[in-house]
Amino acid sequence: MTPTITAFERSPDGGKGLARDMRVRWALEEVGQPYDVRLLSFKAMKEPAHLALHPFGQIPTYEEGGLALFESGAIVFHIAARHAGLLPDDANARARAITWMFAALSTMEPPIVDLAIARFLERDEAWYEQRLPLVEDRVRNRLGQLSLRLGDADWLDGPFSVGDLMMASVLLRLKASGLLDQYPNLSAYVARGEARPAYKRAFEAQLAVFTAASWT
Amino acid sequence: MTPTITAFERSPDGGKGLARDMRVRWALEEVGQPYDVRLLSFKAMKEPAHLALHPFGQIPTYEEGGLALFESGAIVFHIAARHAGLLPDDANARARAITWMFAALSTMEPPIVDLAIARFLERDEAWYEQRLPLVEDRVRNRLGQLSLRLGDADWLDGPFSVGDLMMASVLLRLKASGLLDQYPNLSAYVARGEARPAYKRAFEAQLAVFTAASWT
Repeated sequence: MTPTITAFERSPDGGKGLARDMRVRWALEEVGQPYDVRLLSFKAMKEPAHLALHPFGQIPTYEEGGLALFESGAIVFHIAARHAGLLPDDANARARAITWMFAALSTMEPPIVDLAIARFLERDEAWYEQRLPLVEDRVRNRLGQLSLRLGDADWLDGPFSVGDLMMASVLLRLKASGLLDQYPNLSAYVARGEARPAYKRAFEAQLAVFTAASWT
Repeated sequence: MTPTITAFERSPDGGKGLARDMRVRWALEEVGQPYDVRLLSFKAMKEPAHLALHPFGQIPTYEEGGLALFESGAIVFHIAARHAGLLPDDANARARAITWMFAALSTMEPPIVDLAIARFLERDEAWYEQRLPLVEDRVRNRLGQLSLRLGDADWLDGPFSVGDLMMASVLLRLKASGLLDQYPNLSAYVARGEARPAYKRAFEAQLAVFTAASWT
């Protein structure tokens, strides 16, 4: 059965692949699972039909037969658990790959989202200039620790896994900030993610939504 | 094999059960798995021996034979996946329970942690009073959405699951703020979690660390 995911009708990032449907598309492409996309306006995301699927009124969601999921982490994990290709066979290696997925979402992403909130929602506040360095330092602290752990390895723990897919997706959000450039091994890690054929197919698919929309 | 977890030698909350070892203890108690605890000073958490286990220098970690995990979400999921009691048998219900675990960690916890950061790390900053209402509104927004979804149900999706364990653990961090009191169904939900015998055993165990330490 072909699953259906939801995505922004007009992505706030103009197709740069930073919306959270991108990580789901990437996971589906890695495992070779075709999918349908239902596009949603910002208005539709807050209406009852969508809130029934996603209590926090966001994208992405995932529908497959009688199953409806939300939260990009849960959806990506579901895809990894149901298909071969994103989780190692060995039970311990599998638990470690899942650990990196949680680390991406719970430890790395929150300060990165805080930086985005500061930059985009608090730019006109009186405290913006003064507070920004604090927020950036919190991101750098995590990047420094991650950079040390990665060292000169290609991926975080053995071959590419769902943990790398999620970590690279989260780090990609920093590209425009320049913060990532201070950690060459992390920049190279993200570039390795972007170079994967599955990533490229997912990126093209989300970009096509934006390109089509801008023609109308 | 008895797993070993790590916890603060001196918990910053004085035994109120808000440190992230609490959710792991709770999960272990729910499934009836005995465990050992290794206590760490703040200094030891930043030393190479611990950084080898936890690249971000935090607690909890989880060691079991040759397996070493970090991230409370990953550890709790591992416990739920390896033992009966925290995940439904039905595959779809299982995926939904996991979704709520991710929602607790990725959607609810970040604004709650931001509020703690604002209150404890930015209290002396010039912007503190002005910015606090913004941060509180972000928490209220999520609480309102969660409250609507929970309605008058006991748990988020059928019987108590790992999703409820994680959500209640995250919401508990708000108790002192008074924000939770504005959502009676969420307060009652958290109270149901705290009333579980497994929660009580876990709470007593983490409190005992603090009580013992204050005797010395």
